[in-house]
Amino acid sequence: MENFTLDTLTALPLFQGIGKSELTQFSTSVPHRIVQYAEGENLAEQDHPCRQLILAFRGTIGMRTRSDNNRFAFYERLQSPVALQPEALYGITPRYTHTYTAQTDIRALIIPKDGVTLLFSRFEVFRLNMINLLSTYIYRQGRWLWHNLSGNTEKHIVNFIHSRSVYPAGEKILEISMEDLGLQINEPRMNVSRALNRLQKENLVLLKRRKIIIPALEKLIQAF
Amino acid sequence: MENFTLDTLTALPLFQGIGKSELTQFSTSVPHRIVQYAEGENLAEQDHPCRQLILAFRGTIGMRTRSDNNRFAFYERLQSPVALQPEALYGITPRYTHTYTAQTDIRALIIPKDGVTLLFSRFEVFRLNMINLLSTYIYRQGRWLWHNLSGNTEKHIVNFIHSRSVYPAGEKILEISMEDLGLQINEPRMNVSRALNRLQKENLVLLKRRKIIIPALEKLIQAF
Repeated sequence: MENFTLDTLTALPLFQGIGKSELTQFSTSVPHRIVQYAEGENLAEQDHPCRQLILAFRGTIGMRTRSDNNRFAFYERLQSPVALQPEALYGITPRYTHTYTAQTDIRALIIPKDGVTLLFSRFEVFRLNMINLLSTYIYRQGRWLWHNLSGNTEKHIVNFIHSRSVYPAGEKILEISMEDLGLQINEPRMNVSRALNRLQKENLVLLKRRKIIIPALEKLIQAF
Repeated sequence: MENFTLDTLTALPLFQGIGKSELTQFSTSVPHRIVQYAEGENLAEQDHPCRQLILAFRGTIGMRTRSDNNRFAFYERLQSPVALQPEALYGITPRYTHTYTAQTDIRALIIPKDGVTLLFSRFEVFRLNMINLLSTYIYRQGRWLWHNLSGNTEKHIVNFIHSRSVYPAGEKILEISMEDLGLQINEPRMNVSRALNRLQKENLVLLKRRKIIIPALEKLIQAF
């Protein structure tokens, strides 16, 4: 397995800006381990308790979310380095809200919750990185509700996908029937079907059975 | 002005569970002041920079949010004790996303950002309260996107209001024309008008010019 060095750590989202002496202190005083996941293996599962912070530093991860009624699911891809839902460790419901699957071999630094709590108390940079990360996430997530959501059927489809994406670029896959998509965005099935076919003609989406593949979300967003 | 005692502090959201000796330490080592706001005065304004944490411990606050396109606004009421957007102090956009107005005389503890950062580093209870508050908020906000949002016009109106409410109970006021509400929830104006009139007949909403008053959101939610 590739060596995990202190330099790897400084590239991780929550460790950015941390000093050399703090890194040494981390490696000797905070519980952690390096784990390798094989392609296809799950790193974490939706609705399962979250008891550790997973910081992937090598590889590509598929993130999949099932809807509450199991009628649709949404898939996007995360590139390392990435922290898997640090907010899921805390709060009234410390559970993952997405399922994470290794798309390639993954190497990750894993810190148990106790270790993360220790990091907060000892390392100011880690503490502020965490607070900034959560605050930015709340800001971005909350602003959506105050956007102008009006438009034609295509726009409603784009809004539906855009609002559920962590990153507003790259490949996304929405697993849903045209009828169910219509129910979610309040459009008749026929309008949804026509709009999706127009988007397919422009190569903005690719339609499969119960699947809408968006090769590049940034292009779909730019078009509306 | 009413005396601010250390007991007042322990009732505030972010100070819950804090010890007596830590409270004394807080009062002598962390910059803070007590401010009184008269009825009608703004405590903070949407889009303005957030440089201090406002913790209201007495009185009622009106919270108002304008949409990006200025075509609608949403109003709800907050009861003390309440922390005004602690997440707005941090992140890439440290600005208030709501306007807060005193509905009664308000007394608040105000801690400048430096003081809050100091609190994080010195008081474990405050630190964990903050992380738990932000994490819970992310969880609640994010789950909405995975709910089943299908239903009739009434249901779409209720969804629109429910998703924009911080507290799912009490009075809310939505300032919007029926046409604009129709555009946001993808329904013709006529359907919106009919649905709202049906809800008014059941005393679930009260219609005024460009205003929808919801006397008790919990009743409106229960009905759908």
